Amino acid sequence: MEFCIEKTDGNARAGIMKLPHGIVHTPVFMPVGTQGSVKTLSSEELEEIETEIILGNAYHLYLRPKTEVIKLAGGLHKFMNWKRNILTDSGGFQIFSLTTLNKVKEEGVIFQSHIDGSYHLMTPQKSIQIQYDLGADIIMCFDQCIPADVEKEKATQAMENTLRWAFLSKKEFERLSDELDKNQSLFGIVQGGIYHDLRVKCTEELVNLGFDGYAIGGLSVGEEKDVMYKITELVCNLLPFDKPRYLMGVGVPEDMLNAIEAGVDMFDCVFATRSARNGTAFTMDGKLNLRRSDLATQFIPIDEECDCFACKNYTRAYIRHLFKAEEILALRLASIHNLRFLINLTKRAREAIIKGRFKEFKLKFLERYLKSEYQS
Amino acid sequence: MEFCIEKTDGNARAGIMKLPHGIVHTPVFMPVGTQGSVKTLSSEELEEIETEIILGNAYHLYLRPKTEVIKLAGGLHKFMNWKRNILTDSGGFQIFSLTTLNKVKEEGVIFQSHIDGSYHLMTPQKSIQIQYDLGADIIMCFDQCIPADVEKEKATQAMENTLRWAFLSKKEFERLSDELDKNQSLFGIVQGGIYHDLRVKCTEELVNLGFDGYAIGGLSVGEEKDVMYKITELVCNLLPFDKPRYLMGVGVPEDMLNAIEAGVDMFDCVFATRSARNGTAFTMDGKLNLRRSDLATQFIPIDEECDCFACKNYTRAYIRHLFKAEEILALRLASIHNLRFLINLTKRAREAIIKGRFKEFKLKFLERYLKSEYQS
Repeated sequence: MEFCIEKTDGNARAGIMKLPHGIVHTPVFMPVGTQGSVKTLSSEELEEIETEIILGNAYHLYLRPKTEVIKLAGGLHKFMNWKRNILTDSGGFQIFSLTTLNKVKEEGVIFQSHIDGSYHLMTPQKSIQIQYDLGADIIMCFDQCIPADVEKEKATQAMENTLRWAFLSKKEFERLSDELDKNQSLFGIVQGGIYHDLRVKCTEELVNLGFDGYAIGGLSVGEEKDVMYKITELVCNLLPFDKPRYLMGVGVPEDMLNAIEAGVDMFDCVFATRSARNGTAFTMDGKLNLRRSDLATQFIPIDEECDCFACKNYTRAYIRHLFKAEEILALRLASIHNLRFLINLTKRAREAIIKGRFKEFKLKFLERYLKSEYQS
Repeated sequence: MEFCIEKTDGNARAGIMKLPHGIVHTPVFMPVGTQGSVKTLSSEELEEIETEIILGNAYHLYLRPKTEVIKLAGGLHKFMNWKRNILTDSGGFQIFSLTTLNKVKEEGVIFQSHIDGSYHLMTPQKSIQIQYDLGADIIMCFDQCIPADVEKEKATQAMENTLRWAFLSKKEFERLSDELDKNQSLFGIVQGGIYHDLRVKCTEELVNLGFDGYAIGGLSVGEEKDVMYKITELVCNLLPFDKPRYLMGVGVPEDMLNAIEAGVDMFDCVFATRSARNGTAFTMDGKLNLRRSDLATQFIPIDEECDCFACKNYTRAYIRHLFKAEEILALRLASIHNLRFLINLTKRAREAIIKGRFKEFKLKFLERYLKSEYQS
């Protein structure tokens, strides 16, 4: 991949990533398509909201429909008819959060499928092979993810596993790259829990190994917001300037803006689509409960400043009715809207960085967005 | 409304209906949007599959979001952002099939809402008022629908209620038309269960009253197929040539073709969309179970002869995966496909009628379509 920083504003960066399936403008929000589908949406709709890159998940796709099926289809892009870029997660996070059993061994993790209880061994090599076969534009190292409240000894062990696996991931990635001559990229993942010294060590060693980009993993898993912000800043300051930085699993507007300010370029999170399906929409004036009774006769869009398909074509009154009547169209419209909201947020953040006015933009946005938890 | 028969082929008819929201080519299949949404689909997608008219339901919309809300929105078209035609059902069918309690009185029916158990009185006048307020292009008379196995005495009573209510429906419709000067149309509904003499009497009396079109109700409710075909034929032969005929609740390909042959012009049914959500797709070679394991590596469309969004963009393998993974996109793609299949079926039937080759078309279609219940 090629990555260039077009402009900085403090630590905030406006960049351009050139990937095999098109250009990605950073900061970027990546909608999550865990099982080969960004929940409720078609690939056409993702293009319409200007999605440049989505997430896929090695763990889920390996178990179902299985890697071989997607390989036969000609890769994940073809399988799901998505023409732009895909980043795949390595499965580390899922294996340590979704499975009923997981046992860390020297060579990897033995885990039990959350679908059928079958036993599997996931190794760094296998994770990279899967992601290679899926045809991901960006591949993530296999890592060990821990909850927020883990004591230091365990956090150290997990960080050391992550480092050892990063080395093996890179080796396997290089072997496959030599063999297959594709243009995929590999990102390392910084772990270390809430412990600053572990984060520093992990970051430095990963940078020594050298990756196409670096992710900050294991945040937004239950720790205090301040802890998340501080670790994001700490790690960003240690990462090379000229490589993309990806804060995993973060997609709440206020957290994204804080992370952009610290120098983060990439985000993913299921929060936007999950909130949408639960009936919560993002608006410039804060979150809006789409089931609220006073919306029944509000014949205006979810957000009058939004340019998404839902806001251009449907009213709050109609969408509220769809939620009350349990119509699937409700979930679709709210999902389109929330994703478009985050994509617009990163677009505006990018413009503000280019104009050297990011801080001003952030304060103005948050002042309005956070004025109440829910609109009154 | 204006209705003209362009061509006949035996009793089959190719017609054109001019309604306030555009032309409808008959025979026509009308997707069902019970609660102001054709399940899983946007109005844009309905336009894409060339839907010319959809169904709405007075009973459901009266209870939720309530008629007043839709009236405030400027009518059902505006509420759901649907620019083409809408026919609304009167609520008769739903009141006699969905409610936990219904009691027929002289003036109408007292029923209990299936949503919250609240009590309501529905009269012919009220049903027409609701449909008027919804802004339906075609309004249906309030009728009493009975199950297939009802004895003659009860069937007679229900038919006589239906006739009395048709008279009152028409009176109310005329009063509102004089008052409001809109361009809506009113259809009568033939009831009478499985009893030929009741069907004959009901048809003749409705024709004497005079309506813009005539529906055959109370079929496809559990009776034998032969009974349905015979009654459809019987009623069609008694209806005026120059008015549209609508067979309610029928939307199975083979039944539609038989009814078209008998002279039916309009159809509606939830079967296409419900089957889709259950994972069954219509294809030229019969029904296809989209969860079938051998589809896992079939990288071809649901139906290679289909021109719908699902078939142009996604494979059986992918759609099967979406069903197995319980992704909502599966329901959408199958729904688009099945509706497009029925709309294409009526389009082809129409072309065949115009060419004077309907019987040939029907036989050829059914030979292939019915060769097996499920593709082997």
